[in-house]
Amino acid sequence: MDSINKLTIIGVGLIGGSLARALKQKNWCQHVSGCSRNAANLEKAVALGVIDDYSTDPASAVQDADVVLLASPVSTYAAILEQIEPALNAAAVITDAGSTKGSVVAAARATLGDALPRFVPGHPIAGTEKSGVQASLADLYENHRVILTPLPETTDSATQLITAMWQVCGAEVITMTHEHHDSVLAATSHLPHLLAYALVDCLAGKDEREEIFRYAAGGFADFTRIASSSPGMWHDICFSNRQQLLQAVEAFEQHLRDIEQAIKNDDSDGLLEIFTRAKLARDRFTDLRKPGKQND
Amino acid sequence: MDSINKLTIIGVGLIGGSLARALKQKNWCQHVSGCSRNAANLEKAVALGVIDDYSTDPASAVQDADVVLLASPVSTYAAILEQIEPALNAAAVITDAGSTKGSVVAAARATLGDALPRFVPGHPIAGTEKSGVQASLADLYENHRVILTPLPETTDSATQLITAMWQVCGAEVITMTHEHHDSVLAATSHLPHLLAYALVDCLAGKDEREEIFRYAAGGFADFTRIASSSPGMWHDICFSNRQQLLQAVEAFEQHLRDIEQAIKNDDSDGLLEIFTRAKLARDRFTDLRKPGKQND
Repeated sequence: MDSINKLTIIGVGLIGGSLARALKQKNWCQHVSGCSRNAANLEKAVALGVIDDYSTDPASAVQDADVVLLASPVSTYAAILEQIEPALNAAAVITDAGSTKGSVVAAARATLGDALPRFVPGHPIAGTEKSGVQASLADLYENHRVILTPLPETTDSATQLITAMWQVCGAEVITMTHEHHDSVLAATSHLPHLLAYALVDCLAGKDEREEIFRYAAGGFADFTRIASSSPGMWHDICFSNRQQLLQAVEAFEQHLRDIEQAIKNDDSDGLLEIFTRAKLARDRFTDLRKPGKQND
Repeated sequence: MDSINKLTIIGVGLIGGSLARALKQKNWCQHVSGCSRNAANLEKAVALGVIDDYSTDPASAVQDADVVLLASPVSTYAAILEQIEPALNAAAVITDAGSTKGSVVAAARATLGDALPRFVPGHPIAGTEKSGVQASLADLYENHRVILTPLPETTDSATQLITAMWQVCGAEVITMTHEHHDSVLAATSHLPHLLAYALVDCLAGKDEREEIFRYAAGGFADFTRIASSSPGMWHDICFSNRQQLLQAVEAFEQHLRDIEQAIKNDDSDGLLEIFTRAKLARDRFTDLRKPGKQND
């Protein structure tokens, strides 16, 4: 198994912090440096033992790093990549943990120059509605999937190193194109978040909102849990995967209208058919998630 | 505390079975009779110790009952009430566990005649996506809410008896009008179920559905869990609360279009405002559910 000397994490929150904790626990890297604009947050990360030291300047932070992970909001990537590119070690491998990949690839192509073949776009499918380094966990990635979307230019050795890094954390690593990633994630993650935010905001605007929330049951709690996720992060994701997300929203709206019409038209068989088909699909999904296939 | 001799439960599944288990455990009733169209299910309920005996004929099942609970699908109520009305004990109190109340009240008014003042419409806010008597639990209602929607004609003593029955199970009992119940539940329960069915059915129709489900994370699992609920039951609920539900769907669609427009128009501030407002509302909901206020 590979191991490295220095890992630099730019954006030390739940995702970056959990990776640092896991790799330290497994002795996969000797040294973890952190970077963000918020020195108080970095001090906290040092105090928690998540990182060894830090800089608030990205170019300083990546010096001598063998691996650089971007784990800040995707909207910050272009500026960060531009800043770090001249300071990168000639063999440094760069990766990221962003929830969208098309816009990340575009930012990397525009900024990384000769370092582009050492960039391995990535997305760990893990997280909770909590955020911040204080929520980070060494076992966050165990039995979870990490999707890598290497470019045609990406070297095999770079992809192999990042694959090994995530496998050390207990994750299953899968590769696909960034276009495919963005289409699949729009459907399965970005659209549900958008629907949960829309529902909660819709109900919160009603006069009887206190009662609505008071009499809500466990199903509602589960359904809307993701609306407690970071508004800033999801705002970024919506814009950075705009095209795929808007397509997914439109497909959903059509399905919702079909159900509405079935109710309006007293189409009992039609409505039962839709609900039955959906239940079978959801039960199939539950089967896919049985032990060894766990994602959450 | 009141207690009774005989309880008859029509529809012995998760909801009716859990009530029977709780009341037996607390010795609140001496005898529980079951009724449904499915004798094999009733045999199973007897074997599990949930009911003492059964009849597949509603009129026979309610003889000598002090309390009759309807816990079958709401679409079956009118026919059942018509059948049992002539066989009811002169002091029998009738209640139900249906998820909608307007259509139930209409069915009761059309069928119960002189027994109407002894009808207490009810809705325990509890349940899981599992169903069937084998899933029933004696503690299902502990720290959960039960909404009663007594009619102007309902006697105080009838409401008090049904209130006591649910309190014995550990539930908090609340009363409101049936119109208010149906409006609040459309928003908080019926609409989310409809959205979950719509989303899963939408994704299940895509070519890449296997991958979509394979790469879905915990957020998706939570969001869509309610799509594993009984299609038949939710089909009934949609039709029996049609008007309130369609209003809720329309309000939701407007909110979804607002978010879509914000993304299309590059309205960064607008989108962030919606997501931030929704997160605050969802966090407020979490606070409302803290210990002692638990609903799921």
